[in-house]
Amino acid sequence: MDRKARVAVNGYGVIGKRVADAVRLQPDMELVGVSDVAGDYRVQVAEVHGIPVYAMTEEAWSTMRETGVHVHGTLPDLLKQVDVVVDCTPRTVASKNKVLYDGLGIKSIFQGAEKHSLTGHSFVAQANYESALGLNSTRVVSCNTTSIVRTLGALHKAGLVKKGWGTLARRAVDPWNTHQAGIMNTIVPELHVPSHQAPDAKTIVPDLNITTMAILTPQTISHAHVWQIEMTRPASREEVLEVLWKTPRIAFVRASDGITALNCNVELVHDLGRSRGDMWEVVVWEDILAVDGVELYLFYQVHNMSIVVPENVDAIRALTGLEKVGAKSIETTNATLGIVKDLLRSGKKALPAQQP
Amino acid sequence: MDRKARVAVNGYGVIGKRVADAVRLQPDMELVGVSDVAGDYRVQVAEVHGIPVYAMTEEAWSTMRETGVHVHGTLPDLLKQVDVVVDCTPRTVASKNKVLYDGLGIKSIFQGAEKHSLTGHSFVAQANYESALGLNSTRVVSCNTTSIVRTLGALHKAGLVKKGWGTLARRAVDPWNTHQAGIMNTIVPELHVPSHQAPDAKTIVPDLNITTMAILTPQTISHAHVWQIEMTRPASREEVLEVLWKTPRIAFVRASDGITALNCNVELVHDLGRSRGDMWEVVVWEDILAVDGVELYLFYQVHNMSIVVPENVDAIRALTGLEKVGAKSIETTNATLGIVKDLLRSGKKALPAQQP
Repeated sequence: MDRKARVAVNGYGVIGKRVADAVRLQPDMELVGVSDVAGDYRVQVAEVHGIPVYAMTEEAWSTMRETGVHVHGTLPDLLKQVDVVVDCTPRTVASKNKVLYDGLGIKSIFQGAEKHSLTGHSFVAQANYESALGLNSTRVVSCNTTSIVRTLGALHKAGLVKKGWGTLARRAVDPWNTHQAGIMNTIVPELHVPSHQAPDAKTIVPDLNITTMAILTPQTISHAHVWQIEMTRPASREEVLEVLWKTPRIAFVRASDGITALNCNVELVHDLGRSRGDMWEVVVWEDILAVDGVELYLFYQVHNMSIVVPENVDAIRALTGLEKVGAKSIETTNATLGIVKDLLRSGKKALPAQQP
Repeated sequence: MDRKARVAVNGYGVIGKRVADAVRLQPDMELVGVSDVAGDYRVQVAEVHGIPVYAMTEEAWSTMRETGVHVHGTLPDLLKQVDVVVDCTPRTVASKNKVLYDGLGIKSIFQGAEKHSLTGHSFVAQANYESALGLNSTRVVSCNTTSIVRTLGALHKAGLVKKGWGTLARRAVDPWNTHQAGIMNTIVPELHVPSHQAPDAKTIVPDLNITTMAILTPQTISHAHVWQIEMTRPASREEVLEVLWKTPRIAFVRASDGITALNCNVELVHDLGRSRGDMWEVVVWEDILAVDGVELYLFYQVHNMSIVVPENVDAIRALTGLEKVGAKSIETTNATLGIVKDLLRSGKKALPAQQP
């Protein structure tokens, strides 16, 4: 493709609005418009940002016009103008949409709530960008799975993972929806064990030997992962840290800087001026990470609302062939979004100092 | 001992008040009095229950009298009347108290916040009752460690545990103290990994091969444990369930009965009329428990305020030699407190029905 990729985002919700913003930051992409069914404040913000809004259906068009939203047309009108659509609609809708996208001959990117079988390809840029080149569609895996592929995948690639056991402490609900749903002062265990994230990670890294269990916790900050990993051999803490430091989209923080809980990072990135307080990186606590013989202990934070945003941007480049080399796409995306290796001391690229 | 054991409880807080009540239910024990430093509503309830109240120090005596509490004397006055004292004071105080107890020649029982080295013996009734017979002092291990010894210890005794990996989702603070301390809408990781519970469990079951990590969660209901266990051989789900069903002080619940979160059990046991809504059992979700080859997945609830109460009662019998056989002491304690194998369907002793 020797011109900018023309992109539509279908579904302007938690993920969609972030993908739309990220696309607008890319030098090689153009956001043609977004499509939704709601006309409330969430979609009206798209208009504030000057993004053309389309209605997902005829019925939605009527609803949206009543709230004063200037609707540019319906979803098919939008799709006819683009090379690729990023589908950020709810699970129940997305799979039906694929028929529409395929019929119009445009490329499509789905989110992690969909099944691998919908596209036959699942995507985490740093693990398998090149295998998505020129495909018609792919699925960006879920926030939790993305984080697992980045961290455990990197350790696995370094030959260090014999077996990993993860507990996922999930956020109760996304912040925007806190008034409508949620839990308070309890823990809700996921009934199905092992949870789906471990098998899902294997759609990207087939021989990654891990299992996961999940619990829902009464907080809206983000997910958090507790990992206990049996390594293939004793490795030093420094060796493990170096693997993770050399892996893109993993950022470090330290309790010794006063960052002792999930909320501290949210405060930090807001103070740093990040859009919406997003954390596109897996945020690893450097001074919690510990090694004991062949055992490795890891705690990290997964900002579920934003971590998959850079993957969606890279997936656009892969499907459209805008960029053949994954590392180059990752570099561009990281630079435009402001992705760093150290959340507090951004810009410092050096390896961490030895810990006591 | 051919008469009732005369018991003092030093520290009438979250654990102490429960131990005092449990002692009063035993046919072979007499609660002589309790000792504390506060004179507020918490200690005044002891008077409502007709329990003689003593002042831990001379200074405390003055404070307590000002609030109208009828103080029967100081701690030494109380101790001179008893065979054994259950020390439920805060960590900073308990170890100093041992000198006092030893000097007066009375037996003493400490709680899990103390170090194993304070007494040289740590106690979970079903694991090592007999080894405490006639000792001068022992330490009832913490709520989390007690739960681990009961569940993982039982599976280990059945030869099933090759290695266990546990994540402890801890309650933020005990309910009574919610207005003074606590966390909200975040998760606080424990900085030291592995957390201390795995080594602590080995003070009771030395060859139990487990590691643990812990996170603090914004809820006051109880702790919850997520376990992923590599078994020594493939075992059926039924075999694992049978081991746990035959182990004392493990009770089962089912999500299929609508018990889908920690708070459901609290509501249930309140409805059943349990004192303070206590759960002395480790509460295992039967329909979450899953087996996949050699892998075993386990989720259970630890009611931190009450789970060690029956252990303290049994420790009194062991130290004083009131009962030589652990199983008999456990049986008496369980019957007096109302400990069951099935929280909802109490009284049904049969093995669980096969699960789909």
